Amino acid sequence: MTYCVAIQVDEGIVFGADTRTNAGVDYVTSYRKLHVFAPAQDRSFVLLAAGSLATTRELIDRIERDLAFPPNGASLSTAGRVFEAAEYVGRLSREIQEKHGAALARSGVTGEVTLILGGQIRGGPPELRLIYPQGNYIGVSDETPYLQIGETKYGKPVLDRLVRKSLPLSEAAKLALVSMDATVRSNITVAAPFDFALYPTDHFAPPTPFRIESDSPYYHEVREAWQRGFAESFAKLPAFPAPLPSTAPPMDPSANFVPNPEQPS
Amino acid sequence: MTYCVAIQVDEGIVFGADTRTNAGVDYVTSYRKLHVFAPAQDRSFVLLAAGSLATTRELIDRIERDLAFPPNGASLSTAGRVFEAAEYVGRLSREIQEKHGAALARSGVTGEVTLILGGQIRGGPPELRLIYPQGNYIGVSDETPYLQIGETKYGKPVLDRLVRKSLPLSEAAKLALVSMDATVRSNITVAAPFDFALYPTDHFAPPTPFRIESDSPYYHEVREAWQRGFAESFAKLPAFPAPLPSTAPPMDPSANFVPNPEQPS
Repeated sequence: MTYCVAIQVDEGIVFGADTRTNAGVDYVTSYRKLHVFAPAQDRSFVLLAAGSLATTRELIDRIERDLAFPPNGASLSTAGRVFEAAEYVGRLSREIQEKHGAALARSGVTGEVTLILGGQIRGGPPELRLIYPQGNYIGVSDETPYLQIGETKYGKPVLDRLVRKSLPLSEAAKLALVSMDATVRSNITVAAPFDFALYPTDHFAPPTPFRIESDSPYYHEVREAWQRGFAESFAKLPAFPAPLPSTAPPMDPSANFVPNPEQPS
Repeated sequence: MTYCVAIQVDEGIVFGADTRTNAGVDYVTSYRKLHVFAPAQDRSFVLLAAGSLATTRELIDRIERDLAFPPNGASLSTAGRVFEAAEYVGRLSREIQEKHGAALARSGVTGEVTLILGGQIRGGPPELRLIYPQGNYIGVSDETPYLQIGETKYGKPVLDRLVRKSLPLSEAAKLALVSMDATVRSNITVAAPFDFALYPTDHFAPPTPFRIESDSPYYHEVREAWQRGFAESFAKLPAFPAPLPSTAPPMDPSANFVPNPEQPS
């Protein structure tokens, strides 16, 4: 499994990805799922991938080939808008899945990938797209300025509580790490090291990927402080108001079912 | 959808359940999913249900009938151990599902329910079982002293961080509420009011269900304090260490792909 998240704030876009890959539980390895592309000086892109490792590898290979040997049609260097780049990547992804689909289906597996593509092309703003296995996509909104793929649920509550577009880029990166850590604690198929890329608005040059290892002193410090903060916040919550009976109340022996007072009838 | 959680601590067991039921998104209602049974003075049980509302209703009806008109076989009043009560409830659940299975399958729906049964019978300790739709069950462990059913992922990280068997019963109830609130914030198919039941070890008498409404001042206070605690803890985390380029670095125009330094080859 995988967990990738991208958060768009006013200052730019943060991309984060874990690195755990598993084919069954007895073949667990570490693979980079965050890929940076700089097709020209006026643009750069970051691609996050969740799903079939083989489809992802072939997708990256084809994107690179199209940059080295420009095709007649679209590529990351010819796209005029980020959404056109997303269309292009979505089409490649679908083509690769279709090529292997029948063979994979015979083995009862799927070659699906879900992708997040973000970046900026001069003349437009930084943009994010989540590309479904079918090739279509969604974006972000002011209220929900983040996208997640893979094992998304464990890391969502902390995003919902803390995300806002006014977060500084480095704070958004911290939030992505905390969301990643929540996932790691509850799901063994997601694991450090984590890869991050911070793209500042109007930077155009490609962000340098930044890796946080599982034994990184910074990650250790964040985990400890966050756990401490949880425990302290929890201890400060007002006491639960339910009355706790200290001795068994007298019972009506004829009543063998306690009516639930507000049950709709 | 549904979210139910039960936490077993040294002092007893806490049961919590939301009340939202939906058949599609245009038929959303509120139903009690927490049911208390007191078949005799030496025992009491709490049942939480996630899944088909119809199967649950028929299951409750049958359990009650077996208490009013004792059958030849097992019932909640004849079980010698909590696990025997779980076997009995699991069997009823499976029978009801099988009875309607073919008709439901023709409509493309399922009558499955997943249940949590907890309680105590004099002579034994308080115990918890999660009963699968197939009728088999699991229990808790010292390391994982909680069970969840329904929409479980959003509320799991906070449990994993804070749960321990030494928590006082009322603190465990607070934790169940916080776990419930995390789920509500991230998933619209789970919603207040919430029902709770606190069963103190060796109490034997049935716990009185306790409802927390969405506009309860206590719930409001917990939500506010928890959100504030999150924000404060997050603000205190050490700054993200990634270098943020302030100006675009010079680029090698011949490089159109940024090699990802640690990518396995």
